[in-house]
Amino acid sequence: MVLSSDQASEIEQQQSRSSSTRRVVSKGMEHHLFDPKPVLDHGFIRVIDYMGDDGAIAQAARVSYGIGTKSVQNDEGLIRYLMRHAHTTPFEMCEVKLHVKLPVFVARQWIRHRTANVNEYSARYSILDREFYFPKPENISTQSATNNQGRGEPLAAVDAERVLEILKTDASRCYDNYEVMVSQDDQFGIARELARMNLPANIYTQWYWKIDLHNLFHFLKLRADSHAQFEIRAYADELCNIVADWVPVAFRAFQDYQLGAVVLSAQMVTALKSMLQGEDVSRETSGMSAREWREFSAEFIAAKS
Amino acid sequence: MVLSSDQASEIEQQQSRSSSTRRVVSKGMEHHLFDPKPVLDHGFIRVIDYMGDDGAIAQAARVSYGIGTKSVQNDEGLIRYLMRHAHTTPFEMCEVKLHVKLPVFVARQWIRHRTANVNEYSARYSILDREFYFPKPENISTQSATNNQGRGEPLAAVDAERVLEILKTDASRCYDNYEVMVSQDDQFGIARELARMNLPANIYTQWYWKIDLHNLFHFLKLRADSHAQFEIRAYADELCNIVADWVPVAFRAFQDYQLGAVVLSAQMVTALKSMLQGEDVSRETSGMSAREWREFSAEFIAAKS
Amino acid sequence: MVLSSDQASEIEQQQSRSSSTRRVVSKGMEHHLFDPKPVLDHGFIRVIDYMGDDGAIAQAARVSYGIGTKSVQNDEGLIRYLMRHAHTTPFEMCEVKLHVKLPVFVARQWIRHRTANVNEYSARYSILDREFYFPKPENISTQSATNNQGRGEPLAAVDAERVLEILKTDASRCYDNYEVMVSQDDQFGIARELARMNLPANIYTQWYWKIDLHNLFHFLKLRADSHAQFEIRAYADELCNIVADWVPVAFRAFQDYQLGAVVLSAQMVTALKSMLQGEDVSRETSGMSAREWREFSAEFIAAKS
Amino acid sequence: MVLSSDQASEIEQQQSRSSSTRRVVSKGMEHHLFDPKPVLDHGFIRVIDYMGDDGAIAQAARVSYGIGTKSVQNDEGLIRYLMRHAHTTPFEMCEVKLHVKLPVFVARQWIRHRTANVNEYSARYSILDREFYFPKPENISTQSATNNQGRGEPLAAVDAERVLEILKTDASRCYDNYEVMVSQDDQFGIARELARMNLPANIYTQWYWKIDLHNLFHFLKLRADSHAQFEIRAYADELCNIVADWVPVAFRAFQDYQLGAVVLSAQMVTALKSMLQGEDVSRETSGMSAREWREFSAEFIAAKS
Repeated sequence: MVLSSDQASEIEQQQSRSSSTRRVVSKGMEHHLFDPKPVLDHGFIRVIDYMGDDGAIAQAARVSYGIGTKSVQNDEGLIRYLMRHAHTTPFEMCEVKLHVKLPVFVARQWIRHRTANVNEYSARYSILDREFYFPKPENISTQSATNNQGRGEPLAAVDAERVLEILKTDASRCYDNYEVMVSQDDQFGIARELARMNLPANIYTQWYWKIDLHNLFHFLKLRADSHAQFEIRAYADELCNIVADWVPVAFRAFQDYQLGAVVLSAQMVTALKSMLQGEDVSRETSGMSAREWREFSAEFIAAKS
Repeated sequence: MVLSSDQASEIEQQQSRSSSTRRVVSKGMEHHLFDPKPVLDHGFIRVIDYMGDDGAIAQAARVSYGIGTKSVQNDEGLIRYLMRHAHTTPFEMCEVKLHVKLPVFVARQWIRHRTANVNEYSARYSILDREFYFPKPENISTQSATNNQGRGEPLAAVDAERVLEILKTDASRCYDNYEVMVSQDDQFGIARELARMNLPANIYTQWYWKIDLHNLFHFLKLRADSHAQFEIRAYADELCNIVADWVPVAFRAFQDYQLGAVVLSAQMVTALKSMLQGEDVSRETSGMSAREWREFSAEFIAAKS
Repeated sequence: MVLSSDQASEIEQQQSRSSSTRRVVSKGMEHHLFDPKPVLDHGFIRVIDYMGDDGAIAQAARVSYGIGTKSVQNDEGLIRYLMRHAHTTPFEMCEVKLHVKLPVFVARQWIRHRTANVNEYSARYSILDREFYFPKPENISTQSATNNQGRGEPLAAVDAERVLEILKTDASRCYDNYEVMVSQDDQFGIARELARMNLPANIYTQWYWKIDLHNLFHFLKLRADSHAQFEIRAYADELCNIVADWVPVAFRAFQDYQLGAVVLSAQMVTALKSMLQGEDVSRETSGMSAREWREFSAEFIAAKS
Repeated sequence: MVLSSDQASEIEQQQSRSSSTRRVVSKGMEHHLFDPKPVLDHGFIRVIDYMGDDGAIAQAARVSYGIGTKSVQNDEGLIRYLMRHAHTTPFEMCEVKLHVKLPVFVARQWIRHRTANVNEYSARYSILDREFYFPKPENISTQSATNNQGRGEPLAAVDAERVLEILKTDASRCYDNYEVMVSQDDQFGIARELARMNLPANIYTQWYWKIDLHNLFHFLKLRADSHAQFEIRAYADELCNIVADWVPVAFRAFQDYQLGAVVLSAQMVTALKSMLQGEDVSRETSGMSAREWREFSAEFIAAKS
């Protein structure tokens, strides 16, 4: 990620500003404000604004319980209780606004999370920069043989280089022609909304994205998961670091009860209880599908021996 | 539930209508159309319209997979896979529209499910009927000693009757005075939007409510749960019966992977694995709170012995 | 509105707190923070937190236009342009969190605005206070003869007093019996979730309510309108004052292009153009319904003479 | 648009199916079911399912008014009243499910409408077809000189042909290399989720898209507008034809009160009233911005003379 001197000085100015406020402040989040965290080769995430902290979650819950904000009840215990029992509305009382720079194919996955607010750079209005995502060679992998929508093994180094060569050459030529099409100087000068159709999906775009903490946790559960595409996971992982500093108690609860949790089907519960009583269980008698059984036994049968 | 003769004949007319359509039809749902299922003393649920069936869920998923609707892949296997892996968008492709008559205090819980469409009877525009919910004596219970928002033991029969007497007397007087206030005949004739403020929360209202199947499952998971208030659970249980006939395969998957599922925290997974290896676990070493441990041991320690 | 000494000291403490932040601050909003603005007889609105200011709206828009935050383009011109052309997403980038105390029948209208976050006082968990809304005598009016869901003329003073007497007596008795039912001291001690059904709709509840500025403007457009019920309008009017201090430029644009705007149907545009050319127009040739014509002529025919 | 024989026979089969149902049926919509309407060079829209008709809108509104479905009140009058007064919830009671094939850059605009359900073809799971959108020569235009995000004059024919040549050559080479990268036959066989990043934004994708009628009208108001990009407007225009057959009364109301309506700001109303009284108005005294005045005078000053 290379910042232009304009961008760098704007960020410096934002970070040097300090005002007095009566609002609740998250000390851990203040340090992140405006700072661009590099993601992938040219992308970044930076926090533009936030509302609330761990205390604000507990305070909102206490409105429901009618016990006032002075209660000595432990915030951490309350927040963990809320997370464990899927009492999600108090988590909606925190909000964060991010500035994200990301490849278009990542943006297309990201935007499927509908309960959020977005202002994206408009390629109808402005000309996109010549910035493309090219994976590191070690991240170029074959199609997975077992997971129809995932990656398998990394390519041999020489093959990875050849793939990169293709990606770079095509991106470069497409962008050259994009410039030829939009340029007004002795060129075609066609509408930007038309010319952009020539740009491949690894070009970078950027947006402001605002979301409440409950919906952000849902995003992170899906996108920081090992089955998520590597490129969006890179953003989700960086976001996890930010959230851990913003609302440390809520984030630990999220890790324990969501990210690191295991959902057992009715059939799995029955099987586990049998196993605890010393009985043997098998796929045939378990009522599970082949794939379910594979997941279940990887987690619990292996553990048994 | 007593229907007026007008209502009864309107329902009869709706049910006798039959048209030809090219749309997918759920045979199990057609039988439910327009039929009011009694809930509580004066309430009902009736299906006004629906879109889609089990096949429509699979078909939408196949668009994502690009495998066409002709695929021989088993619908049931696909639907169970979608439910298990929280691939929720295909379930959003089914929709149902209900006519519900319910007490106001139930309506206030119900409306918290925001991703739905609602048209409620307007007490600004029209005069509410004299219909109140009064619980059966055996459903009048004390405040729970262990659950701060639930019920404990049923009252003694004589006390339950006295409570009912209070509820009936107050409802009756409030409604009498509501009539006095709104009536134009030698009475005050005040605006309905004002007079309604005198009506207690057990008066019945009604609405059309439309929701997609994914969000309906979320509603049922929370409201058909044993911790839900008895009165809203009565509606959720009736709805479960309807959904089981509408999309039987999806409903079974919902039962196995949602309603009957158990979520294990990271700490619980660790404890279970220890137990499977024959080790003893205790609350002290488990990292669980007292309440978590109580829930965990009720489910799995009891099972072990 | 009477605050308990506990509440008063909690508010004083919240207001005396001051922290340093790098976030944007709205000076006009800081003064409102935590301060309860009285609405109706016992209700209030107070701002608990906010995110963004006028500048944040312009900044989000500039991400779309790719012109950077340093642009000399005038914020006010940009914000008015956005409002005029229904470019609503930049307004979603501001957020406000309110604590509201309001009668239940107002809460039932309010909650119909679905794109918001809510934590309401739980009458399953806690006992509601003995606080009811009683209108001022001059606000007790007859049912409107022309508007099926509105108010007409105020009642004669003596009649208004009699209506108030009814409301007060019924509320008092219902609450007495609520206490008898929930009290554990030699009383029935029934579950709060049951006993609350005896409480009329003018009892006060309270909640935290969080919403983005775009959706708040939509709320205000509907609820600060002259056709809204007087009681919810009292809250909307107070909110308008707050928003005017928070984002003064956006609020003026909202007044000019939304609140004070007039929507002309295709038929009205045609009629107006004829009138401007000196032609007479009549309902018969206008294609308008009787009601449309009434509204149109009140606005424009009266103006002509 | 060329259908494969598989697709053609599947559509034929869907259209030949006929079932009996008790649900309301829209005769005008039944004819459209499953039929692919060509849009752009390879795209289409086809209706997969629908719920409701004009009568269903009126019926839902009558629940609010408590006047029963037997009322003799005129459906058309009621629907026009609802549309005129922005009583939007009854329109949410109708729903439509579409199968749409569209270029990726159109899909990116389309998806910004968040209140809808989507299942898109997954390029992680499947290989995209070699189908790209290329505009007709007469639709290739210069960047607008007055509208920063629109099109100006068409290019000279010879230049348009050269632009098309660029678009076709780049698309073809990018797709060739996409195939080289994903192919398993003696090629790289890299993961599809990676290889797709080489594909330009004019490649076609497809999805199922489901939305309620109120939100569909909002989509059409923005996307059938003359300021919308030509390519998405082509879809919106086709959709208008479908909706006009599905709910003809609601669609006419939408045309009169939304599509063809004009919103006057507070300042414009004042100016118009002055003009009706024979006074001259000027931009200076009107309080309008230059752009507002241009729009206003184009509509109403020109009409006056």
